[in-house]
Amino acid sequence: MKILEERIEKDGKLIEGNILLVDKFLNHQMDPFLFLEMGLELKRLFEDENITKILTIESSGIGISCVAALTFGVPVLSAKKNKAKNLRDCYVTQVASFTRGGVYDVFVARDYLNPDDRVLIIDDFLAEGNALLGLADIVKQSGATLVGAGIAIEKAFQAGGERVRNMGIRVESLAIIESMNDNGIVFRH
Amino acid sequence: MKILEERIEKDGKLIEGNILLVDKFLNHQMDPFLFLEMGLELKRLFEDENITKILTIESSGIGISCVAALTFGVPVLSAKKNKAKNLRDCYVTQVASFTRGGVYDVFVARDYLNPDDRVLIIDDFLAEGNALLGLADIVKQSGATLVGAGIAIEKAFQAGGERVRNMGIRVESLAIIESMNDNGIVFRH
Repeated sequence: MKILEERIEKDGKLIEGNILLVDKFLNHQMDPFLFLEMGLELKRLFEDENITKILTIESSGIGISCVAALTFGVPVLSAKKNKAKNLRDCYVTQVASFTRGGVYDVFVARDYLNPDDRVLIIDDFLAEGNALLGLADIVKQSGATLVGAGIAIEKAFQAGGERVRNMGIRVESLAIIESMNDNGIVFRH
Repeated sequence: MKILEERIEKDGKLIEGNILLVDKFLNHQMDPFLFLEMGLELKRLFEDENITKILTIESSGIGISCVAALTFGVPVLSAKKNKAKNLRDCYVTQVASFTRGGVYDVFVARDYLNPDDRVLIIDDFLAEGNALLGLADIVKQSGATLVGAGIAIEKAFQAGGERVRNMGIRVESLAIIESMNDNGIVFRH
Protein backbone atom coordinates (compact mmCIF):
# COMPACT_ATOMS: atom_id res chain seq x y z
CA MET A 1 0.00 0.00 0.00
CA LYS A 2 1.85 2.96 -1.40
CA ILE A 3 0.53 5.59 1.02
CA LEU A 4 1.68 3.52 4.02
CA GLU A 5 5.11 2.78 2.53
CA GLU A 6 5.62 6.47 1.82
CA ARG A 7 4.58 7.33 5.36
CA ILE A 8 7.02 4.81 6.80
CA GLU A 9 9.79 6.32 4.69
CA LYS A 10 8.84 9.86 5.65
CA ASP A 11 7.99 9.51 9.35
CA GLY A 12 9.46 6.18 10.43
CA LYS A 13 12.76 6.21 12.28
CA LEU A 14 15.36 3.47 12.05
CA ILE A 15 17.46 3.13 15.17
CA GLU A 16 20.31 0.78 15.90
CA GLY A 17 20.01 -0.40 12.30
CA ASN A 18 17.18 -2.83 12.96
CA ILE A 19 14.45 -1.18 15.05
CA LEU A 20 11.75 0.70 13.18
CA LEU A 21 9.96 3.38 15.18
CA VAL A 22 6.57 4.38 13.82
CA ASP A 23 5.32 6.14 16.92
CA LYS A 24 4.80 9.36 14.97
CA PHE A 25 1.74 7.99 13.12
CA LEU A 26 0.96 4.38 14.06
CA ASN A 27 1.25 3.40 17.69
CA HIS A 28 1.81 6.37 19.99
CA GLN A 29 0.73 9.35 17.96
CA MET A 30 -1.87 8.00 15.53
CA ASP A 31 -3.15 9.37 12.22
CA PRO A 32 -6.85 8.48 11.95
CA PHE A 33 -7.02 9.29 8.23
CA LEU A 34 -4.16 6.91 7.50
CA PHE A 35 -6.09 4.31 9.52
CA LEU A 36 -9.16 5.01 7.38
CA GLU A 37 -7.16 4.47 4.19
CA MET A 38 -5.83 1.23 5.65
CA GLY A 39 -9.36 0.19 6.61
CA LEU A 40 -10.63 0.83 3.10
CA GLU A 41 -7.79 -1.24 1.64
CA LEU A 42 -8.50 -4.12 4.05
CA LYS A 43 -12.18 -3.90 3.15
CA ARG A 44 -11.24 -4.17 -0.53
CA LEU A 45 -8.99 -7.18 0.15
CA PHE A 46 -11.56 -9.03 2.28
CA GLU A 47 -14.63 -7.71 0.46
CA ASP A 48 -16.33 -11.04 -0.22
CA GLU A 49 -15.59 -12.66 3.10
CA ASN A 50 -18.66 -11.55 5.07
CA ILE A 51 -16.58 -10.56 8.08
CA THR A 52 -18.73 -10.31 11.23
CA LYS A 53 -16.08 -9.29 13.74
CA ILE A 54 -12.63 -7.74 13.94
CA LEU A 55 -10.32 -9.16 16.59
CA THR A 56 -7.27 -7.29 17.80
CA ILE A 57 -5.05 -7.10 20.87
CA GLU A 58 -4.46 -4.17 23.18
CA SER A 59 -3.23 -1.68 22.84
CA SER A 60 -1.61 -0.71 19.53
CA GLY A 61 -4.05 -2.65 17.33
CA ILE A 62 -7.12 -0.91 18.72
CA GLY A 63 -6.98 2.39 16.84
CA ILE A 64 -6.50 0.83 13.41
CA SER A 65 -9.18 -1.76 14.16
CA CYS A 66 -11.84 0.69 15.34
CA VAL A 67 -11.41 2.93 12.31
CA ALA A 68 -11.22 -0.05 9.91
CA ALA A 69 -14.36 -1.46 11.52
CA LEU A 70 -16.28 1.52 10.15
CA THR A 71 -15.55 0.27 6.62
CA PHE A 72 -16.66 -3.28 7.49
CA GLY A 73 -19.66 -2.27 9.60
CA VAL A 74 -18.80 -4.74 12.37
CA PRO A 75 -17.75 -4.58 16.04
CA VAL A 76 -14.17 -4.80 17.25
CA LEU A 77 -13.11 -7.19 19.97
CA SER A 78 -9.89 -6.30 21.75
CA ALA A 79 -8.10 -9.16 23.51
CA LYS A 80 -6.93 -8.14 26.98
CA LYS A 81 -3.44 -8.66 28.33
CA ASN A 82 -4.65 -8.40 31.90
CA LYS A 83 -7.70 -10.23 33.15
CA ALA A 84 -9.89 -7.53 34.69
CA LYS A 85 -11.69 -8.95 37.71
CA ASN A 86 -14.99 -8.33 35.92
CA LEU A 87 -14.04 -10.33 32.84
CA ARG A 88 -15.43 -13.62 33.97
CA ASP A 89 -15.85 -16.38 31.45
CA CYS A 90 -12.97 -16.12 29.00
CA TYR A 91 -11.04 -17.81 26.26
CA VAL A 92 -7.40 -17.72 27.33
CA THR A 93 -4.23 -18.32 25.39
CA GLN A 94 -0.52 -17.82 25.94
CA VAL A 95 1.61 -15.47 23.89
CA ALA A 96 5.40 -15.39 23.91
CA SER A 97 6.70 -11.84 24.05
CA PHE A 98 9.89 -10.61 22.48
CA THR A 99 9.69 -7.10 23.95
CA ARG A 100 8.41 -8.15 27.39
CA GLY A 101 10.31 -11.40 27.63
CA GLY A 102 8.58 -14.57 28.77
CA VAL A 103 4.99 -15.53 28.16
CA TYR A 104 1.80 -13.68 28.96
CA ASP A 105 -1.87 -14.64 28.97
CA VAL A 106 -4.42 -13.08 26.65
CA PHE A 107 -8.15 -13.01 27.39
CA VAL A 108 -11.35 -12.67 25.37
CA ALA A 109 -14.80 -12.93 26.93
CA ARG A 110 -16.69 -15.96 25.59
CA ASP A 111 -19.84 -13.90 25.17
CA TYR A 112 -18.44 -11.99 22.22
CA LEU A 113 -17.08 -14.72 19.95
CA ASN A 114 -19.14 -17.66 18.77
CA PRO A 115 -19.27 -20.30 16.01
CA ASP A 116 -21.29 -18.07 13.68
CA ASP A 117 -18.59 -15.40 13.59
CA ARG A 118 -16.30 -14.83 10.63
CA VAL A 119 -13.27 -13.11 12.11
CA LEU A 120 -10.65 -10.80 10.67
CA ILE A 121 -7.64 -10.26 12.93
CA ILE A 122 -6.04 -6.80 12.68
CA ASP A 123 -2.73 -5.78 14.22
CA ASP A 124 -0.07 -3.15 13.72
CA PHE A 125 2.99 -5.42 13.33
CA LEU A 126 3.79 -8.94 12.23
CA ALA A 127 7.29 -9.98 13.28
CA GLU A 128 7.62 -13.39 14.97
CA GLY A 129 3.86 -13.89 14.74
CA ASN A 130 3.28 -14.78 18.38
CA ALA A 131 0.41 -12.37 19.04
CA LEU A 132 -1.26 -13.38 15.79
CA LEU A 133 -0.99 -17.08 16.59
CA GLY A 134 -2.43 -16.42 20.03
CA LEU A 135 -5.42 -14.61 18.55
CA ALA A 136 -5.85 -17.40 15.98
CA ASP A 137 -5.93 -19.90 18.84
CA ILE A 138 -8.68 -17.92 20.56
CA VAL A 139 -10.72 -17.91 17.35
CA LYS A 140 -10.24 -21.67 17.11
CA GLN A 141 -11.35 -22.20 20.73
CA SER A 142 -14.53 -20.26 20.02
CA GLY A 143 -15.45 -22.33 16.98
CA ALA A 144 -15.61 -19.18 14.84
CA THR A 145 -14.13 -19.04 11.34
CA LEU A 146 -10.81 -17.23 10.97
CA VAL A 147 -11.00 -15.48 7.62
CA GLY A 148 -7.52 -14.02 7.80
CA ALA A 149 -5.32 -11.30 9.19
CA GLY A 150 -4.82 -7.71 8.12
CA ILE A 151 -1.47 -6.34 9.25
CA ALA A 152 -0.14 -2.81 8.94
CA ILE A 153 3.60 -3.61 8.76
CA GLU A 154 5.11 -7.05 8.24
CA LYS A 155 8.82 -7.60 8.82
CA ALA A 156 9.50 -10.24 6.19
CA PHE A 157 12.99 -10.86 7.57
CA GLN A 158 11.44 -12.30 10.74
CA ALA A 159 9.76 -15.69 10.86
CA GLY A 160 6.14 -14.76 11.65
CA GLY A 161 4.73 -14.29 8.16
CA GLU A 162 5.94 -17.68 6.98
CA ARG A 163 4.89 -19.44 10.20
CA VAL A 164 1.37 -18.07 10.00
CA ARG A 165 0.89 -18.61 6.25
CA ASN A 166 2.21 -22.16 6.57
CA MET A 167 -0.69 -22.83 8.93
CA GLY A 168 -3.04 -21.93 6.09
CA ILE A 169 -3.97 -18.53 7.48
CA ARG A 170 -4.43 -15.80 4.89
CA VAL A 171 -2.28 -12.81 5.79
CA GLU A 172 -2.55 -9.46 4.03
CA SER A 173 0.12 -6.99 5.08
CA LEU A 174 -0.26 -3.41 3.90
CA ALA A 175 3.49 -2.80 3.95
CA ILE A 176 6.04 -5.62 3.85
CA ILE A 177 9.58 -4.77 4.81
CA GLU A 178 12.04 -7.03 2.99
CA SER A 179 15.07 -5.57 4.72
CA MET A 180 16.14 -2.49 6.59
CA ASN A 181 19.50 -1.14 7.61
CA ASP A 182 21.43 2.10 7.75
CA ASN A 183 20.97 2.50 3.99
CA GLY A 184 17.20 2.52 4.33
CA ILE A 185 14.16 0.32 3.97
CA VAL A 186 13.41 -2.08 1.11
CA PHE A 187 9.78 -3.02 0.64
CA ARG A 188 8.55 -6.26 -0.94
CA HIS A 189 5.86 -5.86 -3.60
CA MET B 1 -26.44 11.93 24.81
CA LYS B 2 -29.57 9.89 24.40
CA ILE B 3 -28.14 7.18 22.13
CA LEU B 4 -25.38 6.41 24.65
CA GLU B 5 -27.74 6.38 27.65
CA GLU B 6 -30.04 3.99 25.82
CA ARG B 7 -27.11 1.78 24.95
CA ILE B 8 -25.97 1.71 28.58
CA GLU B 9 -29.47 0.72 29.64
CA LYS B 10 -29.74 -1.94 26.96
CA ASP B 11 -26.27 -3.47 26.97
CA GLY B 12 -24.66 -2.36 30.23
CA LYS B 13 -24.61 -4.81 33.09
CA LEU B 14 -24.79 -3.81 36.76
CA ILE B 15 -23.05 -6.25 39.05
CA GLU B 16 -22.73 -6.18 42.81
CA GLY B 17 -25.01 -3.15 42.76
CA ASN B 18 -22.27 -0.66 41.97
CA ILE B 19 -20.09 -1.90 39.13
CA LEU B 20 -21.20 -1.04 35.60
CA LEU B 21 -19.91 -3.35 32.89
CA VAL B 22 -19.95 -1.89 29.41
CA ASP B 23 -17.65 -4.39 27.81
CA LYS B 24 -20.31 -5.32 25.25
CA PHE B 25 -19.91 -2.04 23.34
CA LEU B 26 -17.36 0.30 24.93
CA ASN B 27 -14.16 -1.25 26.23
CA HIS B 28 -13.76 -4.90 25.26
CA GLN B 29 -16.16 -5.37 22.39
CA MET B 30 -16.43 -1.93 20.76
CA ASP B 31 -19.10 -0.47 18.48
CA PRO B 32 -17.36 1.84 15.99
CA PHE B 33 -20.62 3.50 14.87
CA LEU B 34 -21.45 4.42 18.46
CA PHE B 35 -17.93 5.87 18.69
CA LEU B 36 -18.61 7.88 15.54
CA GLU B 37 -21.83 9.29 17.03
CA MET B 38 -19.88 10.17 20.16
CA GLY B 39 -17.17 11.80 18.07
CA LEU B 40 -19.71 13.91 16.20
CA GLU B 41 -21.25 15.05 19.49
CA LEU B 42 -17.83 15.97 20.92
CA LYS B 43 -17.05 17.84 17.71
CA ARG B 44 -20.32 19.79 18.14
CA LEU B 45 -19.48 20.58 21.78
CA PHE B 46 -15.90 21.69 21.08
CA GLU B 47 -16.58 23.08 17.60
CA ASP B 48 -15.03 26.53 18.07
CA GLU B 49 -12.02 25.43 20.06
CA ASN B 50 -9.57 24.77 17.21
CA ILE B 51 -8.46 21.47 18.70
CA THR B 52 -5.11 20.35 17.25
CA LYS B 53 -4.64 17.09 19.13
CA ILE B 54 -6.62 14.47 21.03
CA LEU B 55 -4.88 12.99 24.06
CA THR B 56 -6.02 9.71 25.59
CA ILE B 57 -4.56 6.90 27.67
CA GLU B 58 -4.19 3.26 26.77
CA SER B 59 -6.02 1.21 26.27
CA SER B 60 -9.76 1.75 26.56
CA GLY B 61 -9.67 5.39 25.44
CA ILE B 62 -7.95 4.62 22.13
CA GLY B 63 -10.88 3.34 20.08
CA ILE B 64 -13.19 6.23 20.90
CA SER B 65 -10.37 8.71 20.36
CA CYS B 66 -9.28 7.41 16.96
CA VAL B 67 -12.84 7.42 15.60
CA ALA B 68 -13.62 10.80 17.16
CA ALA B 69 -10.39 12.17 15.68
CA LEU B 70 -11.88 11.66 12.21
CA THR B 71 -14.51 14.28 13.05
CA PHE B 72 -11.88 16.73 14.34
CA GLY B 73 -9.33 16.04 11.62
CA VAL B 74 -6.46 15.81 14.12
CA PRO B 75 -4.02 13.13 15.35
CA VAL B 76 -4.49 11.11 18.53
CA LEU B 77 -1.78 10.79 21.14
CA SER B 78 -2.11 7.81 23.46
CA ALA B 79 -0.29 8.06 26.77
CA LYS B 80 1.57 4.85 27.59
CA LYS B 81 1.38 3.00 30.88
CA ASN B 82 4.67 1.26 30.23
CA LYS B 83 7.73 3.07 29.00
CA ALA B 84 8.80 1.19 25.90
CA LYS B 85 12.57 1.15 25.67
CA ASN B 86 12.31 3.12 22.43
CA LEU B 87 10.23 5.92 23.92
CA ARG B 88 13.10 8.16 24.86
CA ASP B 89 12.39 11.72 25.81
CA CYS B 90 9.07 11.78 27.63
CA TYR B 91 6.73 13.77 29.79
CA VAL B 92 5.99 11.59 32.81
CA THR B 93 3.30 11.84 35.44
CA GLN B 94 1.96 9.64 38.22
CA VAL B 95 -1.59 8.31 38.28
CA ALA B 96 -3.24 6.67 41.28
CA SER B 97 -5.13 3.56 40.27
CA PHE B 98 -8.29 2.29 41.91
CA THR B 99 -8.45 -0.94 39.92
CA ARG B 100 -4.71 -1.68 39.96
CA GLY B 101 -3.99 -0.31 43.42
CA GLY B 102 -1.02 1.97 44.01
CA VAL B 103 0.40 4.49 41.61
CA TYR B 104 1.68 4.03 38.08
CA ASP B 105 3.66 6.20 35.69
CA VAL B 106 2.25 7.50 32.42
CA PHE B 107 4.43 8.54 29.48
CA VAL B 108 4.04 10.80 26.45
CA ALA B 109 6.89 11.50 24.03
CA ARG B 110 7.87 15.17 24.11
CA ASP B 111 8.05 15.26 20.31
CA TYR B 112 4.29 15.07 19.93
CA LEU B 113 2.99 17.73 22.30
CA ASN B 114 4.13 21.33 22.20
CA PRO B 115 3.06 24.83 23.25
CA ASP B 116 1.14 25.44 20.02
CA ASP B 117 -1.19 22.51 20.63
CA ARG B 118 -4.80 22.89 21.75
CA VAL B 119 -5.60 19.57 23.38
CA LEU B 120 -8.84 17.70 23.95
CA ILE B 121 -8.54 14.77 26.36
CA ILE B 122 -10.86 11.84 25.61
CA ASP B 123 -11.46 8.87 27.88
CA ASP B 124 -14.10 6.21 28.42
CA PHE B 125 -14.80 6.76 32.14
CA LEU B 126 -14.57 9.56 34.68
CA ALA B 127 -14.82 8.24 38.24
CA GLU B 128 -12.19 9.53 40.70
CA GLY B 129 -10.56 11.55 37.95
CA ASN B 130 -7.02 10.31 38.48
CA ALA B 131 -6.24 9.41 34.88
CA LEU B 132 -7.72 12.69 33.68
CA LEU B 133 -5.67 14.73 36.16
CA GLY B 134 -2.55 12.85 35.07
CA LEU B 135 -3.20 13.66 31.42
CA ALA B 136 -3.93 17.30 32.35
CA ASP B 137 -0.57 17.42 34.12
CA ILE B 138 1.19 16.16 30.99
CA VAL B 139 -0.52 18.86 28.91
CA LYS B 140 0.62 21.45 31.46
CA GLN B 141 4.21 20.20 31.36
CA SER B 142 4.21 20.54 27.59
CA GLY B 143 3.02 24.13 27.63
CA ALA B 144 0.08 23.22 25.40
CA THR B 145 -3.43 24.55 26.03
CA LEU B 146 -5.88 22.11 27.60
CA VAL B 147 -9.21 22.91 25.98
CA GLY B 148 -11.18 20.34 27.95
CA ALA B 149 -12.13 16.72 28.33
CA GLY B 150 -14.68 14.61 26.50
CA ILE B 151 -15.77 11.61 28.54
CA ALA B 152 -18.05 8.77 27.52
CA ILE B 153 -19.46 7.90 30.96
CA GLU B 154 -19.12 10.00 34.11
CA LYS B 155 -20.03 8.53 37.47
CA ALA B 156 -21.36 11.63 39.21
CA PHE B 157 -21.50 9.83 42.56
CA GLN B 158 -17.70 9.65 42.58
CA ALA B 159 -15.47 12.64 43.20
CA GLY B 160 -13.67 13.03 39.87
CA GLY B 161 -16.06 15.29 37.99
CA GLU B 162 -16.13 17.86 40.77
CA ARG B 163 -12.37 17.67 41.38
CA VAL B 164 -11.57 18.27 37.72
CA ARG B 165 -14.17 21.01 37.15
CA ASN B 166 -13.00 22.79 40.33
CA MET B 167 -9.59 23.07 38.70
CA GLY B 168 -11.22 25.05 35.91
CA ILE B 169 -11.10 22.25 33.37
CA ARG B 170 -14.11 22.02 31.08
CA VAL B 171 -15.54 18.50 31.19
CA GLU B 172 -18.21 17.28 28.79
CA SER B 173 -19.52 13.84 29.63
CA LEU B 174 -21.77 12.16 27.09
CA ALA B 175 -23.62 10.17 29.76
CA ILE B 176 -23.65 11.17 33.44
CA ILE B 177 -24.76 8.55 35.92
CA GLU B 178 -26.32 10.18 38.97
CA SER B 179 -26.83 6.91 40.77
CA MET B 180 -27.07 3.21 40.10
CA ASN B 181 -28.26 0.30 42.17
CA ASP B 182 -30.30 -2.88 41.84
CA ASN B 183 -33.28 -0.77 40.73
CA GLY B 184 -31.40 0.56 37.73
CA ILE B 185 -29.49 3.57 36.51
CA VAL B 186 -30.46 7.23 36.94
CA PHE B 187 -28.89 9.67 34.49
CA ARG B 188 -28.30 13.37 35.18
CA HIS B 189 -29.47 15.72 32.45
